[in-house]
Parts: sequence; C-alpha cells; structure tokens
Amino acid sequence: MIAMGEFELIEAVRRRLPRGGPRVVLGSGDDAAVTLPEGATATSVDALVDGVHFRREWSSLAQIGHKALAVALSDLAAMGAEAGEAYVVLGVPKELDEEGCIELLDGMAALAAQTGTTLAGGDVTRAPVLTLAMTVVGHAPTTEDLVTRAGARPGDALVVSGELGGAAAGLLLLEVDAETPATPRARSRFESLSGSKLDRGRLLLARQLEPLPRLEAGRALAAAGATAMIDLSDGLGGDAGHVAEASGVGLRIDAAALPLQAGVAEAAEAAGREPLELATSGGEDYELLAALPAERLGEATAAVAAAGTQLTPVGEVVAGEGVEIRLPGGGTLPPAGFDQLR
Amino acid sequence: MIAMGEFELIEAVRRRLPRGGPRVVLGSGDDAAVTLPEGATATSVDALVDGVHFRREWSSLAQIGHKALAVALSDLAAMGAEAGEAYVVLGVPKELDEEGCIELLDGMAALAAQTGTTLAGGDVTRAPVLTLAMTVVGHAPTTEDLVTRAGARPGDALVVSGELGGAAAGLLLLEVDAETPATPRARSRFESLSGSKLDRGRLLLARQLEPLPRLEAGRALAAAGATAMIDLSDGLGGDAGHVAEASGVGLRIDAAALPLQAGVAEAAEAAGREPLELATSGGEDYELLAALPAERLGEATAAVAAAGTQLTPVGEVVAGEGVEIRLPGGGTLPPAGFDQLR
Repeated sequence: MIAMGEFELIEAVRRRLPRGGPRVVLGSGDDAAVTLPEGATATSVDALVDGVHFRREWSSLAQIGHKALAVALSDLAAMGAEAGEAYVVLGVPKELDEEGCIELLDGMAALAAQTGTTLAGGDVTRAPVLTLAMTVVGHAPTTEDLVTRAGARPGDALVVSGELGGAAAGLLLLEVDAETPATPRARSRFESLSGSKLDRGRLLLARQLEPLPRLEAGRALAAAGATAMIDLSDGLGGDAGHVAEASGVGLRIDAAALPLQAGVAEAAEAAGREPLELATSGGEDYELLAALPAERLGEATAAVAAAGTQLTPVGEVVAGEGVEIRLPGGGTLPPAGFDQLR
Repeated sequence: MIAMGEFELIEAVRRRLPRGGPRVVLGSGDDAAVTLPEGATATSVDALVDGVHFRREWSSLAQIGHKALAVALSDLAAMGAEAGEAYVVLGVPKELDEEGCIELLDGMAALAAQTGTTLAGGDVTRAPVLTLAMTVVGHAPTTEDLVTRAGARPGDALVVSGELGGAAAGLLLLEVDAETPATPRARSRFESLSGSKLDRGRLLLARQLEPLPRLEAGRALAAAGATAMIDLSDGLGGDAGHVAEASGVGLRIDAAALPLQAGVAEAAEAAGREPLELATSGGEDYELLAALPAERLGEATAAVAAAGTQLTPVGEVVAGEGVEIRLPGGGTLPPAGFDQLR
C-alpha cells in the first residue's frame, strides 16, 4: 500500500531520474519532455506484465526494472541506433510500496547509466498487477544509418551475436524452483551442481532475469553494412521468419553452427528437452540476428569483437521464402522451430 | 478470449494504423518506428487502466481508445506543440476479443486522423484488466517555441480555454446510473431531463467520456507569447499549483470569472455539490491554463477564437507563491480547492 499520494510518488520517481543526455533539453516534471534529436530517431514500445513476462517470486524488483528497459533497448540495438531517451509507465499494485517502486527504478536507472540512456519521463498509476510500459528513443545521424528487417539479399551471410539458449535454460532452472512436476530430474540436477557448473547455472539465470541489449554490437553491425537485423526476443525460428518475410527472401540456418551458451545442453537434458529447441524457439536471448554481404564478414566480426561480443556465421540468405533450419544429422526443422513439434 | 496468436493480433492492429505523417519514415512493423523530427520534440506518456481511469460499463471501447489518445495529446497541447506520432501499448484481458481490440483502436485512429497524429507503433500483451499506455511525440521548430510550466511572471494575465466543470459533472451523471446511494436526487434529476436540458446532459457525458485535446488553442497561445501553460487534468486548483511552483510565483484566480460549462450548476446542485467544486477540483476537463503578458490578451483571445475555442481571463500572476482562488462572496479557497475541504 502506497501511503503517499500520486504527486508525491511521481516526485520520488522523478528524483531517481538522472538528468542529462546530449539531446534532452527538459527532462521529467513538465507536461512533456523536450528534446532536440538532430537526425533520425528510432522509437520502440514494450510492455512487461507480472505473470505474463516475469514472476515476482523469481525476480527482484531491481531485476524487473532492468529487464523492462533491456528488452526495450534491444529493439534499438536491432536498428543499429544509439540509445537516447526512455519513458516509463509504471502500473503499481496495492501491495507494492514506495521503497519497492524505488528499488525497481534503481535497477532501471543502473542499466540506463550503463547504456547512456536518459530516463526522460514517466507516469505512475494504480494497476491490479505490476505493469511496466517502456518507450525508448534511439538516434542515428540519418535514416540510412538505421537497419530494418527488410534489406536482406540472396547471397548475404547470416550472423548471430553472442550465445543462444541461455535465457530458455535459465527459465528451466527457475521452473525447477517452482516445483513444476514435469522437471524433477532438472531439480535434482540443479541441486547437484557445484563449482564451475554452479557458476554456469547462475549465468543462465542471469541471462533470463537480467538480459543485456546488444547496443554496441548492433551499431557495429550497422556500420559494417548489415542489410537486415532483428533482435532474438521470440526465438531464432520465429524472428528469422520476420526477416525472411520483410525482406522477401529465404533464410538457411545451419543448426550445428548455432553458438549455444555453456550449460544449455545440461539444463535441456535434465529437463528432457533438446538443446537446439532452447536455442531456436526458447526466445528472450536478446542477441542479434543480422544479414550482411559475405565479403564484409571479417570486418563485422572484428567490429563486434571490439564491442566485447562474439559474432558467429550461422547460415545464408537465399532466393525464395521462409526459414530452413538444417539439422546436423540431415533433415530440417519446420519454420517456427520446435514450436510446431509440440 | 483471443483466438488468434499474438503475431496475428499485432498484424491486425498494424492494419488499423494509418501510415504517413510528414516525419514518419518507417511505421509499425519493424523493431522500431523511424522518424525524422527536424526540430524540437515534446514527448509525453500516459496510462489508462480499467477501474482506475475508466469503467468498461460506462464507456464504449471506441471511447476508451479515443480518451487514451486525447489525454496524452492534451499534454502536447499544453506545450504548444504540433501533434506528431503516437505509440500505444495495449494490455488485453482474456474477455476482450479481437473485434473489441479493433473497435478500441478505431476510436483511437479516428481522433488520430482528426488531430493529424500518426499511430506509428505499438505493442500488444496480455494483462489482467484493459490497460493502455500511450506515448505521444509533438513537434515545434525550436525549443523556444514550446511552453513549459516555468515561465509565468508577476503581472502576467491568467487565462483558461473553453469551459470547466463539465467532465466532473458528466461523472456525476454516470454515477447516477451506477446506482451510487449518495446521489438519488441526481438520478431523479437526470431522468427528468428533456429537450435542451437533455442535450446539455449529453454534452456533459461527452466531456467526460470523449475529451478533446486543445491542440490548436495551445499552439495559438504559444504563438501569442504564453509564458507558462498546463492542461487541466487534475483540476484547476492542483494544476495551477504546478505552474506556481515551477514558475516560482503566486497565482490569483477569480472564482466568479471561471467559465462553467452549461449544465454543471444543475448537475452539481442535484448531487448536493458546489458547481465551483466541480470546476476547480473535478479535473479531466483537459482545457488549458496559461499565463501571458497582459498586453497580448487581445491577440491571444482572437487567435484562440480562430482555433474555435473561447479564452477567458481568470486572474493574474503575482509575486509570492501558491494559488489563491477568490470566492465571489469574499474569502478564498485553499490552494488545492475543495479537495482539502472534504
């Protein structure tokens, strides 16, 4: 129960918002924030709802605030945009007090500071469950510097940043704790982890609970001539399908080339799932899938490495339509990956 | 219950979004919308939650979509900005089907068309109750063309656009239907309305359910030298307090000068309330309160009239702090109006 009125809570929220950012003329506290974009802007909205996108019992409030901003910024990364301003709508349930709101906003503010994002405004309202709606605005000198989903051309190489499957594996480990009847083997497996394996488990949890937007990698790929790009929020199979459709091309992905995060194989095995399933349809890894001219692969790999992230060639763009994920032993997955096998 | 998957619903939503707007390079359907602002931007976020900001049994879905956008655009009006782009997060409860979502978005799209706003993007998610989070972006050639709350100077005239109290009176009429035990007299009064009085009642309901943002009046006031401006969402007393605080001045408002909407007095009387209470603390009228140099009052009045709205001088800016609402019979209301009397 919030003892303070809405005005006071908004004021408390406002004090958490760092001023600044080169384009922000007037931050939170007036009818609107005022900015001078000076170039092209990329704007994306994302919502997180308790029980749909996160569970309060699995995440700290700071992690929820972090994840809401991270998920939104990931869309800017996929455009190759520089992070600019973020606006947050916070729907607060009765049982969340002012300290809780501030813990959540501190988690968000920490990622904002880390990514150079200005929390430029917000609104606070009552809601039946904790609800966050984020709007993020990214910037680029011109519209040509931004990468859409629509420019992939036959012959382009397909690349993926970072590692896949970790977020889905982290979710399996969380479901262990939730006493899901289906995963008693996963529970015993996780409980028996120790040493480096326990660290792996923790990294999988972090992947699920505190994803990081690949902003620098996205800008590096844009600068290296990426023709199409998308962030992997729904899963490689589904997201690749969006690129194929928007670009009017087909995508061939080599399953054996997919960079699985360490520990994904064990978590999948313990839960009776396929590691490849976690990598192709688990979603929430928030890595980038990009198409780019094959001759610029080396340049792109070096640029992404300079941004602290690995880049892995995973296939190619072909004439036609749809997504084909080729399995190591021959055969292919259906377009949406394992989703259609269940 | 939505039978279609999220992808399909998003696609259905996307088809409702008119493309276009001079600054929109790429609308909904990619990771982010791409715009070329070319000047200063004003950005505001607002949320509407079922049971908090509206009631499904009082509003059609089209009215809810209209009101969500109107409330957000009202903040741009208060900056003197031109409406640009809007982004909508739609939290959809299980009992709302696809047709319902589309009815809601059609209501929003109609106001968007009327105000020259481009619905440039959105996100759809499950939510326990119908939830709308709107982000609106307005434009002006330079930051100096935008009016904040902070520039009012002693000696400035205070003006109000349109008429006050109508939204609160409309709410009283709705509460009649909700069988609120406290308003049996209001019920019998409303039921006995006929002819021109019934029309008045309908206008009060429209004021509550389908408010209109004063975008043209806001731009006219900005052009006529408004030094500070705010939209009346919380009520004149509270909103005037925000201007006084941000500008570091005092505001004197003459209660007798306040332009009450026709029918407010009758609705208030029937419910055992004061008409002045509805005008000063009812809120949701979404008219504009502005300060401007007294010598530009004539120019501003003519410009706002050309925008189809009346402008009424209601007081003045003085040195000091706080808001004083002077009653017709002598004496003053406390700063926040009748809120503190209850």
